[in-house]
Amino acid sequence: MFEQLGLIGCGLMGGSFALACKREGLVKRVVGYSKSPSTTERAKQLGIIDDAAPSALLAVSGSDLVLMAVPVSATENTLKAIANLVNPKTMVMDVGSTKKDVVDMARRVLRTQVGSFVPAHPITGKEVAGIEHADVNLYHGQQVVLTPIEKTLTSHLRKASALWTALGCRVLTMSPDAHDAAFASVSHLPHMIAFALIKGIMAQPQGSEYLDLAGPGFRDFSRIAASDPQVWRDILLSNKTQLLAQSQYFRQALESFEKMVEAEDGDAIASEIAKVSEIRAAWRMATNRTA
Amino acid sequence: MFEQLGLIGCGLMGGSFALACKREGLVKRVVGYSKSPSTTERAKQLGIIDDAAPSALLAVSGSDLVLMAVPVSATENTLKAIANLVNPKTMVMDVGSTKKDVVDMARRVLRTQVGSFVPAHPITGKEVAGIEHADVNLYHGQQVVLTPIEKTLTSHLRKASALWTALGCRVLTMSPDAHDAAFASVSHLPHMIAFALIKGIMAQPQGSEYLDLAGPGFRDFSRIAASDPQVWRDILLSNKTQLLAQSQYFRQALESFEKMVEAEDGDAIASEIAKVSEIRAAWRMATNRTA
Repeated sequence: MFEQLGLIGCGLMGGSFALACKREGLVKRVVGYSKSPSTTERAKQLGIIDDAAPSALLAVSGSDLVLMAVPVSATENTLKAIANLVNPKTMVMDVGSTKKDVVDMARRVLRTQVGSFVPAHPITGKEVAGIEHADVNLYHGQQVVLTPIEKTLTSHLRKASALWTALGCRVLTMSPDAHDAAFASVSHLPHMIAFALIKGIMAQPQGSEYLDLAGPGFRDFSRIAASDPQVWRDILLSNKTQLLAQSQYFRQALESFEKMVEAEDGDAIASEIAKVSEIRAAWRMATNRTA
Repeated sequence: MFEQLGLIGCGLMGGSFALACKREGLVKRVVGYSKSPSTTERAKQLGIIDDAAPSALLAVSGSDLVLMAVPVSATENTLKAIANLVNPKTMVMDVGSTKKDVVDMARRVLRTQVGSFVPAHPITGKEVAGIEHADVNLYHGQQVVLTPIEKTLTSHLRKASALWTALGCRVLTMSPDAHDAAFASVSHLPHMIAFALIKGIMAQPQGSEYLDLAGPGFRDFSRIAASDPQVWRDILLSNKTQLLAQSQYFRQALESFEKMVEAEDGDAIASEIAKVSEIRAAWRMATNRTA
């Protein structure tokens, strides 16, 4: 389907993408670039890329498909580095977990060529990073959200959709704002809540003893509190507006539960729990697991 | 170790306890009673109890061990029903997840015989209720908190401790108040938060679409939101004071995260996440799992 993939960022996300594209016969050749030359070299040794490019721009040169698999904080500089070679013959995608900020950068930097950029968020990952952990199945069976803007070329959007589908993904399309609101509500806010819960417990003299008593319910609930500080600093900041808006919805709901408890309104509490419990039990990924 | 277990409440907790006691050879005979005769009958058909008693009092008759595995809201009536047969020859335990309220009831109802009651909270459960889901391994490897009061017979406390240890549990002893504060922080509040998160999401027009995008992080975080409405109504209400106090600690911590995000104070955010992330990663039950 594509002649050459220009991979910018040879890490877990990028390396796994290259492996999967090759396995499915979607690209003939992969040219990779990483900020650290030793990483690019390693990617070549591992056979994940065919050639190492000495710059991001040279990775784009001759590529009809470009994936920027870099941290959101490095996206703007990457776009600047490649802007001169971006044109409708090249389809450029990213993998960032926030989209409004990325789209704004792309508009600013790519200007009249912004239509060649298809913003993408594959919802997957591992707790380990780096090219050594590249996994040909990382994307298989996962969801990918594409967030085109009005200038996005329809032909590119169609090709992007077909590409991710061929990698075994479920492809969804929505606006950057809707994407960011959705992920603020189901991912970024839950992370902030989990961080705050542990901070609130540890603010108490017996906090450590309390934690020692926690069971499997707490284990699952708080698992995301063990996330990477740098990654999550970037995410919380880059989705600030939607995150704070979602936090308000949550606070109102928490307050309504507090008021029902304060008023000892058992019927209202049971009815509210019944509603959310039913929704959670019917949710897509719900499974019966031991508490 | 015991001649006869009088099981009051043939549900998940009670049925699993009976199965485990029998497997470990800790009781010779189980006489069970449930409010619904069909449940008691089913427990007998499944071989979980040996005999069905027509009343709670008759389940206690002849039993040297009694387990009240009923909702906390039914504890007082259960104690009243059996009070006449409670004496130092019988060790009575409960499985309630709040302890101050249960201890107060026991003082009022059992009066001079309150020493025969050993308040117990096994920290385990499943999202599914009922005798059909009784599981011989439900208690194995879990923690049990005993919250004796000054009148609790030492001999009973020792027997209770030995019994739970024999079922494979880690036994901890603390005051009813300390227990309730601890569980408000690591269990009851997380449940209320999980309920509120879903209520807050569903309060928005696109709430269902947001949920559809949620991934494995949300799955684990929100698992406890699928809990039983009646059980959790009772728990939230019975531990009202400690729960609302813990919710204040949490709100303060959440607010401090919101303020750091609002101020775009990346260093402070990363430093706070690093602290809680380290605490969570070092926690007793922490395991490395794919995000």
